[in-house]
Amino acid sequence: MKLGRLNHIGVATPSIADSIAYYRDVMGATDIAEPFDLPEQGVTVCFVDTPGEGGTSGTQIELIEPLGEQSTLTTFLAKNPLGGQHHVCFEVEDIHEAREWFEEQGKRILGPTRIGAHGTPIFFLHPKDMMGQLTEIMETPKDDAHWSN
Amino acid sequence: MKLGRLNHIGVATPSIADSIAYYRDVMGATDIAEPFDLPEQGVTVCFVDTPGEGGTSGTQIELIEPLGEQSTLTTFLAKNPLGGQHHVCFEVEDIHEAREWFEEQGKRILGPTRIGAHGTPIFFLHPKDMMGQLTEIMETPKDDAHWSN
Repeated sequence: MKLGRLNHIGVATPSIADSIAYYRDVMGATDIAEPFDLPEQGVTVCFVDTPGEGGTSGTQIELIEPLGEQSTLTTFLAKNPLGGQHHVCFEVEDIHEAREWFEEQGKRILGPTRIGAHGTPIFFLHPKDMMGQLTEIMETPKDDAHWSN
Repeated sequence: MKLGRLNHIGVATPSIADSIAYYRDVMGATDIAEPFDLPEQGVTVCFVDTPGEGGTSGTQIELIEPLGEQSTLTTFLAKNPLGGQHHVCFEVEDIHEAREWFEEQGKRILGPTRIGAHGTPIFFLHPKDMMGQLTEIMETPKDDAHWSN
């Protein structure tokens, strides 16, 4: 296993609209995508781009707001009503190899591999097995020049 | 104010030694710097590099372990014994302009501007004014080709 890009940090928010205003008006973000729903994960998602080195794309901020009453984010926001850092997401070249790797390491994988917010396969690892961080593993998009290395 | 690079995410840990083993052996990090003490901030620090797009440097992981009994990290680790995500750090071109900007926005700045782990001026902003995230603002290093944009 080789450490890949930190694709994004997941930031929970009670209001994506408020977070967009914050990143745009206070933090000075200029590239903020349209929010969209991921019903199977119980979240509405909005990506904020940050600049990387030398004009490249940097790590994104993935704003996530609860969608529906069963959202797993509800518990997080009950504890952190303002929102806050929720997870980290690292890229891998091959999601199947990565899943096998973490299984071999005895890490608890949360549910099946599924399609994530960037349209590529992802899975989550239990924060108690990952030094306290809910960790998403995501296959690097192959057909999008924006993300190619 | 223009959003700069996400220089690093700060990750609290009860043991930098354990975190180094985790990032190296489980996550596959290859570029892990030597830990060093920042006594005035009450932390021991260790940077883990992640790859950026196209061979550039990506956002770093800043491991922070309490140093001394008065460390501000002690409270965080009492609540999160395994460690976890502690803060985010964005770069700015001019720390004085940035400080003025956030003061104008009515954001609470935590203490004076001081020299941070990368040897450039930094300050922290109150998480309750920053959508739940403890936020570090750091002046981009000017004399280090590694960080130039």
